[in-house]
Amino acid sequence: MASVAVIGAGAVGSYYGARLAQAGHDVRFLLRRDYDAVAARGLRIESHHGDFALDSPTIARDPAAIGPVDWVLCGLKTTSLDAAPALIRPCLGPGTRVLAIMNGLGIEEALSDALGTERVFGGLGFTCINRGEPGVVHHYEYGQVTIAHLRDDPAELDRALDLWGNAIVEVSAAPSLLRARWEKLCWNVPFNGLTVAAGGVTTEAIVTDPALRAEARALMEEVVAAGNAALTAAASPERIDGEAVIARMFALTDVMGPYRPSTLIDYLEGRAIEVDAIFAEPARRALTLGVPTPRLDLLTALLGRLDPARA
Amino acid sequence: MASVAVIGAGAVGSYYGARLAQAGHDVRFLLRRDYDAVAARGLRIESHHGDFALDSPTIARDPAAIGPVDWVLCGLKTTSLDAAPALIRPCLGPGTRVLAIMNGLGIEEALSDALGTERVFGGLGFTCINRGEPGVVHHYEYGQVTIAHLRDDPAELDRALDLWGNAIVEVSAAPSLLRARWEKLCWNVPFNGLTVAAGGVTTEAIVTDPALRAEARALMEEVVAAGNAALTAAASPERIDGEAVIARMFALTDVMGPYRPSTLIDYLEGRAIEVDAIFAEPARRALTLGVPTPRLDLLTALLGRLDPARA
Repeated sequence: MASVAVIGAGAVGSYYGARLAQAGHDVRFLLRRDYDAVAARGLRIESHHGDFALDSPTIARDPAAIGPVDWVLCGLKTTSLDAAPALIRPCLGPGTRVLAIMNGLGIEEALSDALGTERVFGGLGFTCINRGEPGVVHHYEYGQVTIAHLRDDPAELDRALDLWGNAIVEVSAAPSLLRARWEKLCWNVPFNGLTVAAGGVTTEAIVTDPALRAEARALMEEVVAAGNAALTAAASPERIDGEAVIARMFALTDVMGPYRPSTLIDYLEGRAIEVDAIFAEPARRALTLGVPTPRLDLLTALLGRLDPARA
Repeated sequence: MASVAVIGAGAVGSYYGARLAQAGHDVRFLLRRDYDAVAARGLRIESHHGDFALDSPTIARDPAAIGPVDWVLCGLKTTSLDAAPALIRPCLGPGTRVLAIMNGLGIEEALSDALGTERVFGGLGFTCINRGEPGVVHHYEYGQVTIAHLRDDPAELDRALDLWGNAIVEVSAAPSLLRARWEKLCWNVPFNGLTVAAGGVTTEAIVTDPALRAEARALMEEVVAAGNAALTAAASPERIDGEAVIARMFALTDVMGPYRPSTLIDYLEGRAIEVDAIFAEPARRALTLGVPTPRLDLLTALLGRLDPARA
């Protein structure tokens, strides 16, 4: 049994933390908005794999009350990335590992500046999951997590897979964090982005509108090109198989129904959207690499203006 | 004195029609929404060149009541382009000429299919003009009109310039309709488009946001490239001087203040926006010409979805 701190217990953090608790781990949730609701009624997961609940989960309002653990599962939005090290540090012991299940680029690098590279893993959750009423998470579809290590260390990856061994989560290890991050962007850039920029529509509206579907594909192609240039520049032997990844992203999304990505929900509810990590940072890297990404650039500029939290 | 029918007496048609009436022409306005207001109180132009009013303009609800005229000034939105020939036809005599002061591509071609190529002129109004209360037009800035002929016939151009000789409008003749149309798009594509796609903002928000300003420039560059390819394909010796046009468009817009282009107003008021003529038709022509226009394509797809009148 491992001790696990869930920092950033939104939909994603709560869901995966609950799955680890269900598997028998000692999971402690850092809560703010939902603290009272979870204290009163527990944490309930309504999942297409079957509903379950943690009736009396260990919860805290302050990471110091959680203390050092074996694993930190970080589910913060990247808009709070600057605050992440201070929230994580009270949970660190000598061997603590940190798994950031977040979207975008630059996350592990930002965490490792404060915490050290050997501790840091990226988790790429492909799942349709939204918060419901306080203390309730809706899990509609998928749920798999790909885990990569900041140094691409195979022994560290084995350690991460061990954590999830008994959990009802499909987990796989990615040999290259860089490749995994760019592949994930092939979904997040078009779908988190276009659902907002097209006026607040679901993924279904994107995949069923021929013009928007073509733009989603073209955005994916830009991401693939930039990602492969990044892998080349990093002297990695890995490459993204663009056609295969794009086909998979559409196949997964075509059956998703009217799903609202987290960025769309944040936008519709007037909260900061993750412009920098999901859009601006990939665009900056592509520029540095000399890869033209005209659609990503336009989308990024529009989202910067549409961001409810813009300066 | 010429007789002039104004078909499509929105802000642009009303303004230029009133200027022709002010110059002594017999101008007859086809009105719908504003008919009662103009019948009761006349047509008032509040202009930065000085306010003026037509106290008892000739108005009609039906073009048959206007009858044949020397000139038809068509100020319809391109979203009503299909209806234009039927509205114009009752105003045609043997020598009638038609000047379409509208934005986008394909306008003169659509009119000439029904009316014949020799009659048809394009008018490119560069003006900041909006409707006010019924019977009132606000003219904030600029006002110049560039006129071109569908066959680029110099004698026809002289005839058009004669019409405007005494009017308080700065008019010039363009030797190439094709070039003039694409140059005008260098303004309409970025500013009519981005003000809507960025969530409903003014031109000032575009030119003062560094990322959106860069995207506006990049969109202009795509339009210039497509326009020059179109001129080449048409065996025209004319070319758009991209850098000069782009610099002029920004210089004009930088002093415009918080202007709301017509497309933005239509969008904000829930009316159909001119997606096809201003965005989709240029994108289709660029595709045919083999010119990549990734930003225009993305913008067109977004606007197609944002269009209040989408199917």
